[in-house]
Amino acid sequence: MSIVERLAALRHLMQQHQIDYYFIPSSDAHQNEYVPDAWQRRAWFSDFTGSAGDVLVGLQDAYLWTDGRYFLQAEQQLDMSHFTLMRQQQGLAAPIDQWLGEQKTALRVGVDPTVLTMRQAQRMQTALSAHGGDLVAIAENLVDAMQSDLPVLPRHPITVLAGEQMGASAQEKIARLRQSLQGRGDAWVETALDNIAWLFNIRGQDIDYIPLTIAYALVTYDQAVLFIELDKVGAAQQQQLAEQGITVKAYDDFAAALQSLSGTVCLDAGMASWWVQQHVAQAELHVQLSPITSMKACKNPVEIAGMRQAHKQDAVAVIQFLSWLEREWQGQTEISAAAKLASYRKAQPGEQGPSFATISGYGEHGAIIHYFVTPETDIPLGNDNLYLVDSGGQYTCGTTDITRTVHLGEPTAEHKKYYTLVLKGHLAMRHLTFPHGASGVHIDMSARQFLWQHHVDYGHGTGHGVGCYLCVHEGPQRISPGLIHQPLQEHMIVSNEPGLYLPGKFGIRIENLCLIQKVAEQADSASQHGPFYQMDDLTLVPYARDLLDFDLLTAQEIEWIDAYHQRILETVLGDLDADTQAWLQTACAPLHS
Amino acid sequence: MSIVERLAALRHLMQQHQIDYYFIPSSDAHQNEYVPDAWQRRAWFSDFTGSAGDVLVGLQDAYLWTDGRYFLQAEQQLDMSHFTLMRQQQGLAAPIDQWLGEQKTALRVGVDPTVLTMRQAQRMQTALSAHGGDLVAIAENLVDAMQSDLPVLPRHPITVLAGEQMGASAQEKIARLRQSLQGRGDAWVETALDNIAWLFNIRGQDIDYIPLTIAYALVTYDQAVLFIELDKVGAAQQQQLAEQGITVKAYDDFAAALQSLSGTVCLDAGMASWWVQQHVAQAELHVQLSPITSMKACKNPVEIAGMRQAHKQDAVAVIQFLSWLEREWQGQTEISAAAKLASYRKAQPGEQGPSFATISGYGEHGAIIHYFVTPETDIPLGNDNLYLVDSGGQYTCGTTDITRTVHLGEPTAEHKKYYTLVLKGHLAMRHLTFPHGASGVHIDMSARQFLWQHHVDYGHGTGHGVGCYLCVHEGPQRISPGLIHQPLQEHMIVSNEPGLYLPGKFGIRIENLCLIQKVAEQADSASQHGPFYQMDDLTLVPYARDLLDFDLLTAQEIEWIDAYHQRILETVLGDLDADTQAWLQTACAPLHS
Repeated sequence: MSIVERLAALRHLMQQHQIDYYFIPSSDAHQNEYVPDAWQRRAWFSDFTGSAGDVLVGLQDAYLWTDGRYFLQAEQQLDMSHFTLMRQQQGLAAPIDQWLGEQKTALRVGVDPTVLTMRQAQRMQTALSAHGGDLVAIAENLVDAMQSDLPVLPRHPITVLAGEQMGASAQEKIARLRQSLQGRGDAWVETALDNIAWLFNIRGQDIDYIPLTIAYALVTYDQAVLFIELDKVGAAQQQQLAEQGITVKAYDDFAAALQSLSGTVCLDAGMASWWVQQHVAQAELHVQLSPITSMKACKNPVEIAGMRQAHKQDAVAVIQFLSWLEREWQGQTEISAAAKLASYRKAQPGEQGPSFATISGYGEHGAIIHYFVTPETDIPLGNDNLYLVDSGGQYTCGTTDITRTVHLGEPTAEHKKYYTLVLKGHLAMRHLTFPHGASGVHIDMSARQFLWQHHVDYGHGTGHGVGCYLCVHEGPQRISPGLIHQPLQEHMIVSNEPGLYLPGKFGIRIENLCLIQKVAEQADSASQHGPFYQMDDLTLVPYARDLLDFDLLTAQEIEWIDAYHQRILETVLGDLDADTQAWLQTACAPLHS
Repeated sequence: MSIVERLAALRHLMQQHQIDYYFIPSSDAHQNEYVPDAWQRRAWFSDFTGSAGDVLVGLQDAYLWTDGRYFLQAEQQLDMSHFTLMRQQQGLAAPIDQWLGEQKTALRVGVDPTVLTMRQAQRMQTALSAHGGDLVAIAENLVDAMQSDLPVLPRHPITVLAGEQMGASAQEKIARLRQSLQGRGDAWVETALDNIAWLFNIRGQDIDYIPLTIAYALVTYDQAVLFIELDKVGAAQQQQLAEQGITVKAYDDFAAALQSLSGTVCLDAGMASWWVQQHVAQAELHVQLSPITSMKACKNPVEIAGMRQAHKQDAVAVIQFLSWLEREWQGQTEISAAAKLASYRKAQPGEQGPSFATISGYGEHGAIIHYFVTPETDIPLGNDNLYLVDSGGQYTCGTTDITRTVHLGEPTAEHKKYYTLVLKGHLAMRHLTFPHGASGVHIDMSARQFLWQHHVDYGHGTGHGVGCYLCVHEGPQRISPGLIHQPLQEHMIVSNEPGLYLPGKFGIRIENLCLIQKVAEQADSASQHGPFYQMDDLTLVPYARDLLDFDLLTAQEIEWIDAYHQRILETVLGDLDADTQAWLQTACAPLHS
């Protein structure tokens, strides 16, 4: 179907349902970052494939809202004669609600209630009702209804992991969840797949890049129930779950289970769908951030050890790749280089595939922040511009995410200047000491300050949380200009990834994952503040020494780089072949020699 | 009346009105920072004199909520056997609402509706109604009702200023206000005294420290009305106002004028009182930040020139004081030194008195962030600890606010270390380049980073807006960890005042006022960001060179200090007597000699 046909078909259905607009967000019933094909309604409908972007179709007009990461991509993929691109700014309130509120007429906006969170539904309803309009739940997804052969949802078998491997048994985690519910309510409804995977120590293969299984969970003081397609759970797995006090029921039984709940039901309004809310009609609702999200964010000692192990292995793969790249780049393209990197990772024990779609961007492609190379866009690597690679791996012991930017020939003064400014911010963030209570918004400028000094900036956040053998983007914490109260805590893992993008020229990003560690107790603070925290690098891959502009680096920064490179040598060198060892020794040789 | 008698009398009245709690905020009908004596209900009732703090009295219990600046002072002034001190944390939601929400019973809370903003009333009502409670407007102020001889409100004559003196006529300002109302509503209701003074180019003497007159204003497309006690406006002033299209009516006529409004009335829910809202019952309300607040925040060229002039004169006074202090400190006390500083200011042309109550704190008194010296607390200055003076002046051309910390003998290594760390933050903020769109929260850490590195911090914001011959604390912008979306803009004035407080030992604060200036256009940004801004110092008084720890200063910082001191010499030296000139030349001599 062409876009014209798709618009016509949808508008026909809209008229049948007597609605003025139909809302097609990028999200699915579980608010997955990587939405299964069967639930990719927005991408299928609009041709825009970015991970964030919501479509609103009217009888005459159509809009796509997306953020700074995707402006370029949206302009390329969207049929701009039919869609208006709504450029969303970071750190501001959801502009669809605002836009709806500004339409000073009574509008009926339809939506599939499974793909909208409770909070989104409430905001849209508030905006619409200000002018007598209404948000209309339409049980049948109208985009699905237009398709004759819908892709089917994946149904892969699950694995149940031992408590020792995860640092805590499912039983212990469920007990902690119940403890946190005390005095708040009678049940916890969990709809986020990574929270379900963490809580029950299960993993699946239903979602690209992340070892998740499609399921719901319901925990009361008596019961812990996993709602899942029953053919995904073998007899052995069912037994393992039963030993942890977990009952398995069919995925489709969830609706009836919700309807039978009474008392006070706790759920996360930013994750649970409007459909869930409509089904918990008999109970009172208590809305809060999922306690599982909070518990999962602060890693336990086994998870920390696992993340360090994963990063050591990942460093071996990425260092092999960088060493190979320097020798063998000629004749390679963005796609073939990414494939080579994947092959190095695959050789590592416990590797389970990439943790997200590799961004492999040469030259001006590096300036497209979330560039996804396709055969149509693929270009050969060269030695007269920068090459940016953002990639990560899933390992059974942890998850990695690393960006390195390199130059395979003689970098220009401009390349060096901007690479060094990005690196200075990356180092400042890594070495910043910050107090308990600080949220990401309070330290974000640490990574931007040197760029600002040179009148440049980057249009994305500086860091995101990361799961352990789970999602590469994990909440609740993040480091960005968003005005979000979510204090950074000890043993959270965050990325540290400042960048710089010169459209049409090149992009730079330098990303490590870091563990937040305590460096001082409040009792030791002369002004009685704190405790104080600092980040420690998990990632162990050298920076690009030929891209350093030494006029811009302080002695302190050079010392930091040398100490990091020394640590890489000490940790990784022994695991490399002789050729790669030689490359790493050169890459990590002290700078102040 | 003792506190026991006051509590008993209030509780008696509360029972008559059938309320469970009575709320006594520190605020008055105009949300003045400096509340006239007649409206100082909270201080009169509780004995706590800090500028921020709200009291809630129950039939058995009583509470004071205040923030980190006032914890020490509240502990000293409050009778802790009758009050519970509720320690409020910066950047978090108003905790009275939260507390009310947590009392899981239907409470009736009484309040005088004139002293509560619409927004506060709404929040408290929401919290109370969750458990079936109610916020009850009681027209008579119960604290006033307990007093036999209430102080009367001041009624000083007003001055009408010429448009040339203020950079724009009242007529022009009213026209800009009307323009900003287009499409939003039919009238603007203004209750903030500084906004009224700015809009109508009038000044008064009703409020301590700030040249304001108690009044209300109402602007429609036809009319601009000043509601004010008529005996404060002479015939000449009435004529001057009429020439600008401003009608004068009696202060008490405001209630009837509000009641007669129809259509859509615009007001600032964070400033206008619940009483105002109750009186605009016939009209629809449109709630927004006052456009006057936004207009006033960005200074015009005449205001900027006036502020520079005021700071030049203020520098002369403060430099004379510091020079005198170094020679004559023996035998002086916190009070006598503050008086001497005031006398130097008074000698300056156009000086109109202090812009706030001087903080003059020696040694451990410096650690009380908003210390107000009284004859009971006054102590002699010495030469073995730090002395902190935070003061400012009102001049007819502008308003100043400066803090300097000095040592009159041999500072210890600890004094130098912490002074230098505070100064490094102050310099980093002053020289930070930041992009358009950044709010104060995004740059606040610039001033804290070096303190954090040494595991210390300060419990107040880094900067506030400042008016021109108006309030020394002016919105909407501020620089603090508060999660507030209020981008810093060109030609705003902000203070830059990091500090450090070691309870029982000493306090350090270094404060300059700065003008935000554009340093780069977006068109000149390689990444298409910006425009970019930087602060420029208005304040022109040297830092304490004997408190510098050179091991902690970079070459760049020393250069910045020297450049600042050189600029002081160039601007101020000619206005000083010979003795003070010699002192200033020593104080400003280059550091890298």
